[in-house]
Order: sequence, then C-alpha cells, then structure tokens
Amino acid sequence: MLRTHTCGELTIQNAGQEVNLCGWVQRSRDMGGLTFVDLRDRYGITQLVFNMEVNPVLCLEARKLGREFVISAKGLVAERSNKNPKLPTGEIEINMTSFEILNASKIPPFTIEDNTDGGEELRMKYRYLDLRRNINRKNLELRHKMAIATRNYMNDQGFIEIETPVLIKSTPEGARDFVVPSRMNPNQFYALPQSPQTFKQLLMIAGFDRYFQLVKCFRDEDLRADRQPEFTQIDCEMSFITQEDILNTFENLAKHLFKVVKDLEIGNFPRISYDLAMQEYGSDKPDIRFGMKLFELNDLVKGKGFKVFDEAGLVVGLNAEGCAEYTRKQLDDLTEWVKRPQIGASGLVYIRCNMDGTVKSSVDKFYSSSDLTSILETFNAKPGDLVLVLAGKKESTQKAAGELRLEMGRRLGLMDPAVFKPLWVINFPLLEFDEETNRYYAKHHPFTSPVPEDIQLLESNPGAVRANAYDLVINGVEIGGGSIRIHNKELQKKMFQILSFTEEDAQEQFGFLMTAFEYGAPPHGGIAFGFDRWCTIFGGGESIRDFMAFPKNNSGRDVMIDTPAKISTVQLKELNIKLVN
Amino acid sequence: MLRTHTCGELTIQNAGQEVNLCGWVQRSRDMGGLTFVDLRDRYGITQLVFNMEVNPVLCLEARKLGREFVISAKGLVAERSNKNPKLPTGEIEINMTSFEILNASKIPPFTIEDNTDGGEELRMKYRYLDLRRNINRKNLELRHKMAIATRNYMNDQGFIEIETPVLIKSTPEGARDFVVPSRMNPNQFYALPQSPQTFKQLLMIAGFDRYFQLVKCFRDEDLRADRQPEFTQIDCEMSFITQEDILNTFENLAKHLFKVVKDLEIGNFPRISYDLAMQEYGSDKPDIRFGMKLFELNDLVKGKGFKVFDEAGLVVGLNAEGCAEYTRKQLDDLTEWVKRPQIGASGLVYIRCNMDGTVKSSVDKFYSSSDLTSILETFNAKPGDLVLVLAGKKESTQKAAGELRLEMGRRLGLMDPAVFKPLWVINFPLLEFDEETNRYYAKHHPFTSPVPEDIQLLESNPGAVRANAYDLVINGVEIGGGSIRIHNKELQKKMFQILSFTEEDAQEQFGFLMTAFEYGAPPHGGIAFGFDRWCTIFGGGESIRDFMAFPKNNSGRDVMIDTPAKISTVQLKELNIKLVN
Repeated sequence: MLRTHTCGELTIQNAGQEVNLCGWVQRSRDMGGLTFVDLRDRYGITQLVFNMEVNPVLCLEARKLGREFVISAKGLVAERSNKNPKLPTGEIEINMTSFEILNASKIPPFTIEDNTDGGEELRMKYRYLDLRRNINRKNLELRHKMAIATRNYMNDQGFIEIETPVLIKSTPEGARDFVVPSRMNPNQFYALPQSPQTFKQLLMIAGFDRYFQLVKCFRDEDLRADRQPEFTQIDCEMSFITQEDILNTFENLAKHLFKVVKDLEIGNFPRISYDLAMQEYGSDKPDIRFGMKLFELNDLVKGKGFKVFDEAGLVVGLNAEGCAEYTRKQLDDLTEWVKRPQIGASGLVYIRCNMDGTVKSSVDKFYSSSDLTSILETFNAKPGDLVLVLAGKKESTQKAAGELRLEMGRRLGLMDPAVFKPLWVINFPLLEFDEETNRYYAKHHPFTSPVPEDIQLLESNPGAVRANAYDLVINGVEIGGGSIRIHNKELQKKMFQILSFTEEDAQEQFGFLMTAFEYGAPPHGGIAFGFDRWCTIFGGGESIRDFMAFPKNNSGRDVMIDTPAKISTVQLKELNIKLVN
Repeated sequence: MLRTHTCGELTIQNAGQEVNLCGWVQRSRDMGGLTFVDLRDRYGITQLVFNMEVNPVLCLEARKLGREFVISAKGLVAERSNKNPKLPTGEIEINMTSFEILNASKIPPFTIEDNTDGGEELRMKYRYLDLRRNINRKNLELRHKMAIATRNYMNDQGFIEIETPVLIKSTPEGARDFVVPSRMNPNQFYALPQSPQTFKQLLMIAGFDRYFQLVKCFRDEDLRADRQPEFTQIDCEMSFITQEDILNTFENLAKHLFKVVKDLEIGNFPRISYDLAMQEYGSDKPDIRFGMKLFELNDLVKGKGFKVFDEAGLVVGLNAEGCAEYTRKQLDDLTEWVKRPQIGASGLVYIRCNMDGTVKSSVDKFYSSSDLTSILETFNAKPGDLVLVLAGKKESTQKAAGELRLEMGRRLGLMDPAVFKPLWVINFPLLEFDEETNRYYAKHHPFTSPVPEDIQLLESNPGAVRANAYDLVINGVEIGGGSIRIHNKELQKKMFQILSFTEEDAQEQFGFLMTAFEYGAPPHGGIAFGFDRWCTIFGGGESIRDFMAFPKNNSGRDVMIDTPAKISTVQLKELNIKLVN
C-alpha cells in the first residue's frame, strides 16, 4: 500500500507515529512560517504542516501544490495546539518530512465543496469531480449500506438471489421498451426488462419459493425529475403465502433497514385501504407525518342554495390549524394555487374560526352561523383554525384536496424529513377504465389476482373488483408495490379477456407463461421496491439522481461520456438496420 | 403461510405433530392398502402416507394425483418402520388427514430427476421445469452463496459496491457491442457494457478508493459452449496500491470463498510469469493439479541429422509416467490426435523407457541409446515411463505441447474436479503484434500499465514490454484478470499511439477519460473475475449455462420466451430505424 493510514483515522493516540498518507489537496493556506495543507480522501481530511524554519525546501515545494493535486505525504503525527472539534482528526496534524506528487491536477471547473459553485450541467459533465464532494460520496455509501443490509436480511430469511436475463422480449403492455437488435438473428430484437416480473413468476413455478434480486430495470419514457431510463429494483417473490405473509415479511425488511441504516425503531405499519386513503388523504400514497385529514361535507352543505356545492359530486375540506390569521392576500394566493392546472380546482372556500369564537367564511351568504359551526365541529376546529373547502367531481376533487393538504403541510412545516411514517395501502382497484380507448387496463399488471370474494364481480362489474395488491408508502412516496398473482390458468385467461387482449396477443406475449401455469404453478405473490427512491428518502434527498453514480439527464444523455452517440456504418450493416432521417 | 414446515426439515423429533406441507408430487406408489406420495419442495422430499383402511375416500383421491401436481397436505408426523437413511427426512412419514390440490399439472415433457430423459433443447424450452431438478437448484443455490460471500467479504474489507450504468457508449476496440437505439436522440445509440472498465477508473478518480460490483456484462460474439451474450463479473478496483496489494487482497477473497463455499483451506497461491507458464505448461492458464512439466530439448537433439528437429524453433517434450506400455495403436492414435487442426502439430516422437531398462524410440535411426538416455534423464523418467516430443515453431509448438499435456492428464486421471490448485500468472506481454493488420493490439486493454522498468522499451521494442497484469487461474481455467492502470495522461497518450489510435479516435472514444486523468487521477489498479465461470468450477460443472437461471443457446436465443423476436413497426418508427432484408 502506498499509505499507512487513511485521512480519516488518526487521533491523539497516534501522536509521535511516522505515517504515510495519500489523498487530494483540498486547500492549502500559507501562514508565513507555516504552510497548512488539508489532505482529503474518502475517509476524511487530515491537516499537513510544512515548516519554513525546519525544512524550507519542502515548504517551498508544498506552496506549489494546487487544489486536487494527488500526493503521497510522509510525516510525524503531532497534537494540534489549535484543535478543530468539528473534524474527527481535528486533534492532530502531521509535521511533514517528505512528500511526492502522484499526479498534478488542472484547476477543477467547480469547487469540491458541499456548497459548490458548479451548476448541474457542469457537475454532470465532470461527474468524477462532483463525486469527490462529501455529499455525493455519502449518498453512494448509504446506497451500498442499504444494498448489503437488504441482501443479508433476505438471505437470513431464506431468500435466494437469482439473476434474471437482461436481454429479453419486448411486450407492448406498459411503458416503452428499450430494444437491442440481434446480429445473429437478423431483423429480430431483444428488449431490456422493465421488471423481471415474468421471470420471477417462472422461478416460483420452478420451485424457488423465496426469490429476490437487486436488479437493473429499464423504461424508455420521457424523463422527469424523478425518472431515469435505468433504475434499480429490490425484486421479491414468494410461494405458498397469503397477502398477510408478504406484508409481514417486507414490513420486517423495512424495519430492519430503518434500524441498520437510520438507527430508528419503527412500530408496526398502519394499513389503510385505497378507498379510505383517497377519502381521508386524497392520495393513494398518503403522507401521514401529519393529520389534517379530509372530511366529506356533502350532507352538511347541500340544499342551502349554494349552487357550486349543490352541483358538486364531492364537497371536501380540511382544517389548517392555526391559520385563521391568514390575510385576504394569503387566501387569494391559496385560491390561485388550487386553480393552477396541476391542481385543477375551480375555487376555494374558507371558514375561519376566529380567536374570539366568531366564525367568518367566504360563503356567509348561503350558510348560517350554525351551519358553519357544524362544519367546524366536523374538523374539531378550535379558535385560530382555518377550514378550507373544495368542491367538484369526486375523483378530481379528492386529488386536489390531497394536494392542498400537502401544500398546507409544507407551509406549516409538518413534513420533517427526519421523521419517517411508513404505511401499507391495500385493496387497490384491480382495473382502471380508460375513456379514450374504451377499455380496462390493469392498475398493477395483468398477473395481479383479484381479492377472492370479488372474483364473482369480474364479469358483471369489473371496475368494482379489488386487487390483492399493496403498496408500501413512506412519507408520501410509494417505495414499493406488489400483489398476489394469479396462479390459475383459467383466471389468467379471463383477465386477458377483460384487458382486451386477443387470444393471439396473449399467446404471443405471454404464451410461455400461460404454458408454464399448466405444469403445477404454486400460489405465489411478491413485491418490488424502487431502490433508488428508497435510498433517496433515507438520505433525505430530493432526486434519485443524487443517489446514482452516473445518472442521465432529462434527454436520457450521459453528458460525461457523451452518449447516446452515432455508431459506425459497419455496425449498422452487421445489425441489418438502416437509419431513418 | 400455507405450510407449517418445508419438505426438508421434519425428523423423528417432530413425531406426533400435526403439520401442513406444500409441494410438488415427485412420485406416488400404490401399494394396495397404502398409497405413498413423495412430496418435493426446494428443501427436500417428505413421504406422505394415505391409508385405505383409515380413510378410503382420501386415499382414492390421492391415487388421482399426477406427477408435479401442487398440493397442500395436512397430517401427523410418524416414525417410519422402513427408514431411508439417504434422505434427511427418511426417518419419518406423514399420515395424511387431508389435502388440497393447489394446482394440477399436465404430464411434464421430461422427468424431473437428476438423470432426466429430456434433451437440452427440450429442457431449455421448459427451463422452469428443468430448474425443479435438484442438480440445477443446487447450482443456483451455490451461485447465490458465492455472491453473498463475495459481497460480505468485500464489504468487510472496506470496498463499496457502486452500480455503473448499463446504457453506455459503443467502443470499437475489443469484442462487438450490443447497441440500443435512442428514441429521444434520433440516429444515436447506447451500447451495453462489455465491462465497466472506464467507469471503475472514473470512480478511482472520484476518490472511491475501494470499489467492487457484481455486474452484468455483454458481448455480441459468436457463441461457444462456454460463452453467453450476457455474463456476470466480480469487478474490482483499488487506489494507492501496488500489484502486490491487489494479489494479496484477491488471493484472500479466493481463499475466503474456498473456505465458505467449498470448506477447503488453500495455502498461498504460487505465482508464475507468463514466460515460464508457456515454457513449462505450454499455456498461460496452467492446470497445476499435476506436474508433467514441459522441457525444452533443443540443446540435446539438434545436430544429429534428424531434419525435423534440426529445423524446428522448439523441440519440447513431456513425460507421461507409466505409459511405456502404450501399444503401437495407442501411439498412432495419439499422433493423429496431435495432428488435428485444433492442436496443429506435424507429428509426435516417443521415447519409451521399458521396464527392463532398455530404451525404444521412434527416432532410433538418428539418436544413440545414450542420446536418448540423456533426454530421459531430463524428465527424470523411470522404467515404465513414456516421453512424448513435439517440434516446430516455438509458440505453436509450446501450445500444442500444452494441449498434449492436458490430454495425457485427462487420460491418466490426474484432473480430479474435487482438487483445486489456484495460481497467479503475472508479467504478461503488454502488446500482441497482429501480422494481418500489421499493428500492435493491447493484450489486456489499452489502460494497462507497463512494468515500470520496461517503459523505456516502449518505443524501441514494444513487443518485449511486460505488463503490470495478472490472471488468477484455477485448474487450468482463467477465473479472473486485471492490471495496474496507467494513471498518467502522457503515458496513456503514448499507449494509444502504439496501438495505432489516431488522436481523433482516442479523443472520440476515450476523450472523457483522458480529460479525467488531468484532474488528479490516483495510482490505481484492479481485477475482474468471471463469476459464472468461478461458480462453474466450484460446482464441478462443465458449462457456465448450468449456473445461470435462464441462459441462451448458441444462436443467442432464449427458446423458452422465444427471443429475440420481431418488434412492431410502430416501435421501429419511434426509434427512427428501418430493417434491411
């Protein structure tokens, strides 16, 4: 090794030792007789001291060191007179006896500091420099810790990790596939997996009753802030189980990760049905770090002559505690906010519970003081509270109210990133009807089984059928989801019919799976977690990009290696493809 | 859970307990009053007993169970009268009280037994049934065990696993890339990585001084038995190290895996230079489970009038101990064997050391008895031994002799798959000259550094420059290889020149890496192991396919899911490509 120690480990215990450190020059300060160099590696920072009186030649050489030079430095550990309690190595410094420049460095295009002066575009182009920043290093270290803790936990529970193929078959259902032309099979293509769904089901049929995999998945979608063309899943599947077993097994995984990675003991996760989540939180991924539940007001407000409420499918409100002091301006702003197209409400009604006990609302014309008081009682509103009410079509109004709830939570500082409130959302609808194409789509995927007692509704009322499906939500983010699968060939056939697959489509796309079901498929189910997202939540980050070593930008480009790129005509010819301009 | 126990865990200790098992019907035997069903799951086999006298209805139902039916079975654990010591559960059986068919099965197309009647093609089409066979299940379990042991060991050594991207950039150097058309960047392509080589070097520049990854890699090559279009590497890189540190670190990983996976204590691995390996074993991946070293005979045989030897660049032999009794026919067969195009020798000379001390050779005409005795002494040949000699051009004759050595090792039973003899081969040549294109190619890859003392030869005699490169070989199989990298931009530029890269080529393909080298690249090096191969060696298997869940055939096809396949014209259009017929 070119070093005896790292830059993060020397303490007062090592005083007097001769050591050899390697690392990067973080900064250097020239203080007349002394030159200080902060040497950085993955493990920390150690202060090197060059003394003009003791060794002027060395000191002068040291003054030539630029930022990010890589050096190997030899010296004696000494107690600092001026200790730095913020640094683990802050009690010591190294009195230098010699050093060697292992590599020089050009001046980096941005500062290697937590608060860097580099914009995102520049940092992505020089991602290898960006990754030198503590904050990014810690993100990747957290990701590694999550991965190894996950694997060991799953292994301890008897799961085995099995690698499924990356070169698979394109299926038009779901998002767009990335495809790979086959040279050996002209005019044919592989596809990259959007998930190993069918393979993990085949592994259950193969008898591997507890499978997991941390696996790269791919989706050729138009990218948003929180999407990447390649991402990682914790993919899991079990046989001979019920939904209850899945929820328990993976709740325990989550608790284990909270403990190991965040040092947090989390109690049992609440479970809430999709219907109730929509009703109380206006979201299928409720953030339950705070209450502010939605209440339906239809019975209280209808028939009093206020047309907006009378004609609405749903009148729903929430109590923004302590917001009675909101000014006219603030209320107008909030009204504008809910009317933005992303939220889509037509307006906002408020009922203010003044400190003196009086009530004031924007609908005083239609509602008596006692009408308003009844509404306030629904929310347990106290003097000082502000009830906000939306009205409109049921589904869109639920969602708008859910967004308003989150916005008020943000404004009131109720969403502490250090607080974690996981929960299960269960009993999702099995199907979604799409008006445009006039057909049902699988809410989850076509292999999701219905709740047994709802199977009878499949023909008569498909929209009402609940799925044996579940999501794990943490702080308003869907971390994972899964379902108990259909293991019966007949039921699977019926599902394909309801999803408007022709017999031929189903056969061509999933024929091998349907054949496999004929050879003793066990009852099975599973779950997949968005590993990037989970890391992001645990790391207190905003974007999954910050938890990937080499992410792509919104155009799917890696600006560092400059890809995608043109390929040679020889390559195109070998692959039997031609470009269309 | 639908079961209380697995089919592998019940013993005499459980006698009297009521249990619930789930699994597949391996076989059933109808013995008049009793019906026995062997129930199988991933963990083992348990015998279920149905008694016609006790419960005739249940027994008659059980008789209808076909092979591979999936059932849930309830009963009481009882001691067997007729114990089966070969089975962990062989002391007990379950007296059945009820069962439920969870899923029926068609008759499988081949028997689910270690010695199956199914051919490879059929088994691959029904791979999910093939994987039910013990032998395949054990292979994947071994692979999982290897992976988790590797990860924990690397983690314990301070390495962090970092995921590098799968959608990268095509580089013409090396094998053919698989490419992925980009929809968002028309007429541009991603490539799938042949290895994360450049990314791991960038991670070193980023300061992650100990990186590893178990990672899928891709090569669009014409497939042979031991090649797959996608395969897995244990990819590793370290900074601030010398070759010695790499060899020690990864020798310890290998020893750890031998211990954990094979329960074997392996001593220190021998190290041998490439030149010596070629000289003594005729191979850069010698199988040292047996001796039978090659000896050069040029000095002993030249100038005696035997033209074949006189004109040869190399005359080289080996001692096949105890083979003096080989018949004329056997020697003729062996001569034919070495003359096959795969071996390419022009003939075979033998010198037989008879049991009575006399010597007989196929070149008695040219060599006196004392000439021959001198040769035999070179090999320490004893009465009963047979020395075999090849002659020709140096390099091809070394290789042919190496192949002959392996063949004799096989014939003499010297290659016990339960014996493991790892070693390091070091000091590879840096460059290989290709006569056809009249240029040098990197033997390893263009980032491999020369042995420091040979740098001066780079201009004058590139072919003589040794690389700071090493391979780990186990039982004649190259398990891994790596090198200390060039971290100096000037040296890297010179390498590209020697490899006939134009400035533009180098810039276009590796520009970002060369730029990165300007910002403080630390000295670094690494290694990559063929994970599939390592599993295959440890599992005593023949082909890496048997250690992959869903391998492809020699045409790169997955015959189970029938891919590669056609994609829709909509997809082609979105990707701006057209098929060429």
